[in-house]
Amino acid sequence: MTERICYACGERAAAPATRCDCGEPLWLDTDPHDFDWNAVADDPGMWRYAELLPFDSPGGVADAAGGTPLLRLSRLDEFAGVRLHLKDEGSNPTGSFKDRGSALGVAAALESGVNIVGTVSHGNMAMSTAANAASAGLDCVVLVPDDIPESRIDLISQYGPRLLRVSGDYAALYDRSLELGVELEIPFYNSDVPLRVEGQKTTALEICEAFAPGVPDAIVLPVSSGGHASGVWKALRELKTAGTIDQLPRLYFAQAAACAPIAEAFDAGDDAVSPVEGGETIAYSIANRDPPSGTRALTAARETDGGVVAVDDDEIRAARGAIAESGGLSVESASATSLAAIRRLAVDGELGEEDDVVAVATGRGVSESPPSSERATVDRVDIDELGERLGSR
Amino acid sequence: MTERICYACGERAAAPATRCDCGEPLWLDTDPHDFDWNAVADDPGMWRYAELLPFDSPGGVADAAGGTPLLRLSRLDEFAGVRLHLKDEGSNPTGSFKDRGSALGVAAALESGVNIVGTVSHGNMAMSTAANAASAGLDCVVLVPDDIPESRIDLISQYGPRLLRVSGDYAALYDRSLELGVELEIPFYNSDVPLRVEGQKTTALEICEAFAPGVPDAIVLPVSSGGHASGVWKALRELKTAGTIDQLPRLYFAQAAACAPIAEAFDAGDDAVSPVEGGETIAYSIANRDPPSGTRALTAARETDGGVVAVDDDEIRAARGAIAESGGLSVESASATSLAAIRRLAVDGELGEEDDVVAVATGRGVSESPPSSERATVDRVDIDELGERLGSR
Ligand SMILES: [Zn+2]
Ligand SMILES: [Zn+2]
Repeated sequence: MTERICYACGERAAAPATRCDCGEPLWLDTDPHDFDWNAVADDPGMWRYAELLPFDSPGGVADAAGGTPLLRLSRLDEFAGVRLHLKDEGSNPTGSFKDRGSALGVAAALESGVNIVGTVSHGNMAMSTAANAASAGLDCVVLVPDDIPESRIDLISQYGPRLLRVSGDYAALYDRSLELGVELEIPFYNSDVPLRVEGQKTTALEICEAFAPGVPDAIVLPVSSGGHASGVWKALRELKTAGTIDQLPRLYFAQAAACAPIAEAFDAGDDAVSPVEGGETIAYSIANRDPPSGTRALTAARETDGGVVAVDDDEIRAARGAIAESGGLSVESASATSLAAIRRLAVDGELGEEDDVVAVATGRGVSESPPSSERATVDRVDIDELGERLGSR
Repeated sequence: MTERICYACGERAAAPATRCDCGEPLWLDTDPHDFDWNAVADDPGMWRYAELLPFDSPGGVADAAGGTPLLRLSRLDEFAGVRLHLKDEGSNPTGSFKDRGSALGVAAALESGVNIVGTVSHGNMAMSTAANAASAGLDCVVLVPDDIPESRIDLISQYGPRLLRVSGDYAALYDRSLELGVELEIPFYNSDVPLRVEGQKTTALEICEAFAPGVPDAIVLPVSSGGHASGVWKALRELKTAGTIDQLPRLYFAQAAACAPIAEAFDAGDDAVSPVEGGETIAYSIANRDPPSGTRALTAARETDGGVVAVDDDEIRAARGAIAESGGLSVESASATSLAAIRRLAVDGELGEEDDVVAVATGRGVSESPPSSERATVDRVDIDELGERLGSR
């Protein structure tokens, strides 16, 4: 189950290839024909879908990856314009969906007998890869940009990885690290490599199982590299192939307007995603100006009758505030793009109030400063006057 | 199922009483005789134990409370001196075990028709209560000390509660808010009130179900007010009464040495816990100099043949580092006291390497700065020299 295939041209390749000769990213060539919901395993979290995964859990913190809550947040229906469900990926052990791919990557590394894994990231993926490596007793090298803030170094380094601050063209590092990884036998679990995508597909498996025997009308998630989007699409294709679902939910992907190459290609009707200049946004963790799986995500949106939506920072801020104040969840700004996109799609009439729509909230908001302190009601009172003050509400 | 009973003298009282006339805290008077593991409900998270809870889930974020991973972290066995299991309460929606009690409290408030809940806290309980109230559409008032750091205000206020900075004797506020709450019909879900304790008992239900038909040799958790400890003890008593378990695991509670009133009472052989002066510790969130359920926790430790252990900041720091670097989890310092206590108990011969011991990690470490940046290996390299540098590891 570790041979790779190109979604675009159908060519096959052997591990450790990550790119097809046609230029598009590869994913694992899997055969889901026998799968149905009765075939799930009695294993924790994402390992429930062992039948559809190439490796078993390595144990430790990997056992906590996935199995995240899918919440019906009806108090957000009015804001969203749909029947809103939220997939809370923040409950993963390092606080983001990245743990699903990191756990599978580490499982593969152990299986192949290497003693080190790597990644290129200065955010959630860095923490996730380092944490999963630590739990498995593997060394870990994390390549970060030279100008990384010290606070980010603190967060990543607590798991004890080797951090390398790399000067030069950080954008070139994605492909360069994959090349070097093959050469030096260090598996680099960058954001759209086949094993990470394979782990990320479990997000969609969980969503579909929760809606079985039906499916939600749409699934909406933030898109950055396109790795998670690709994983979700792959899961839906596998379930369809297996006959476990009859139709695919529509897939919509959300980007921050300041850096939205996939949305721009979608709107323009282009066949492929081109790099953009890219500007600043509060959803910095998905601001990817040249997404390696951008065209694959674009294809997923088109083939599922979905779309790609760019939302601006005000819309993101409003969505993030609504999720906290009416949903009771603190999500990172990048995660809030899902709800912002749903609201936009509902306003545009592409989603309706009878639609069951799943917003994937990819990560916890804790490492960002909250957006809403200006809305806080903070009064001062002496304990002796407390009764009077509380009584006069 | 909402009448209350005193664990100490057996007196009963009606809601909303929280204290017995004898001075000790009340808990709910429940009848678990019919319960067994086959009676669990097909509900998410902690609501699986509906049979043992007085209210159903109010939906929303409350559905995400509990159901946390129980991880076998064998790479920590050597450090711990036991077969180590970790209960990861950080995966709760606001990052701590407090969500279990807050969710049940909000369920009770909705049932009784009030439109507001309150709590006294400037930490995890404040965030948890505010988040659960927000999701249920209830108003929320959080009483915080006047000198609360602004960063803490930001974290709590994102859920939109009314924050009141109270000057005067903050320690007196715990009881004063409960009195005012009764007067003004604002249920205050402070840390050891009956409904919060009832929710917290689900931590132990999950642990015991995972070990069924046996039990772990010991469960070790941080103790502050004694509310969580009381809930865990209550769960074990109920399972024993129901015949679901044959024997109780030993309960050990961990405190920070700088503020350890329960450990001091345990060591002295006292019948009751007395307030201490209390000093500074990195485990600030459990530094409770006058714990309202201290004597109840002390009794739980004695009656289960367990104990109460005080660990110093160096031991806590070492345990927190070990959990991150060998377990892949970032926990708050207060949570790390569990592992520090286990290590001490193993060194003292009270726990052995064949014992299955559960360390409860009560909360995520994200809101604290990580302890280990001095251990980070951070080198600088140019992208053109990356191959050479990685190859020479
Ligand atoms: Zn191809
Ligand atoms: Zn009594």
